[in-house]
Amino acid sequence: MEQRISLVTLGVTDLERARTFYERLGWRGQELEETVFFQAGGIAVVLWGRDKLADDAGIEDSTTEGFGGMALAHNVRSRAEVDRVLSQATTAGAVLTQPARETFYGGYAGCFTDPDGHVWEIAHNPGFALDGDGAITIPDFG
Amino acid sequence: MEQRISLVTLGVTDLERARTFYERLGWRGQELEETVFFQAGGIAVVLWGRDKLADDAGIEDSTTEGFGGMALAHNVRSRAEVDRVLSQATTAGAVLTQPARETFYGGYAGCFTDPDGHVWEIAHNPGFALDGDGAITIPDFG
Repeated sequence: MEQRISLVTLGVTDLERARTFYERLGWRGQELEETVFFQAGGIAVVLWGRDKLADDAGIEDSTTEGFGGMALAHNVRSRAEVDRVLSQATTAGAVLTQPARETFYGGYAGCFTDPDGHVWEIAHNPGFALDGDGAITIPDFG
Repeated sequence: MEQRISLVTLGVTDLERARTFYERLGWRGQELEETVFFQAGGIAVVLWGRDKLADDAGIEDSTTEGFGGMALAHNVRSRAEVDRVLSQATTAGAVLTQPARETFYGGYAGCFTDPDGHVWEIAHNPGFALDGDGAITIPDFG
């Protein structure tokens, strides 16, 4: 199995609400058959009905709220940009679960949840380089 | 907010078990401070204690099992590769939740959960181009 991800699909209970939220963050996607696709660098972020996502994966959707055990991070180039994106997200309807603060790794980050409870961390980590397209490179820790 | 993801962090209850699982799939990562980082194209997949992840995000980890409402997809170049990766994953300890089958979009896919219940779909979708590095491009649906 190659070391890569193609899609990150966020299960949602109200597709229009979710799409509107991400559009308020400035994202632009395409909708096809009640599914919204956002091109995000070399992967895609997809919004799809949570019930359909569970059913498609052969999984019972028994827990419909609470922490899903997975988080997405969006790294930016400065502390000011962390503050700006967190502000934009709360204006768009996100819940700020962790106000921006110094992190143990020498960075600065805060977290919000989207309307379906999916967790996003907005982080400035000077140790993880971002190229012009936003691709991230994990340094050699050796 | 730029339209991209930097990290996908999977909360795990046993870091070594999780790391071993992904290594059996052929992935190679680096561990730093009880965190494993896998470079995956222009993003990184990270394994981190589920309790730490929740705490860091300012979220109560009330639901410790069940569907998390998010799924990762790994698209491949042929149906045979779908079968191969699903077989590799079950050998590595995954639970096959959806055997490979024809999909409604004209592809072929199956799903498994990793040792912490995170959902992976392995898919061949002839409509979504993969470049040589595995980067995916969502076509223009217009």
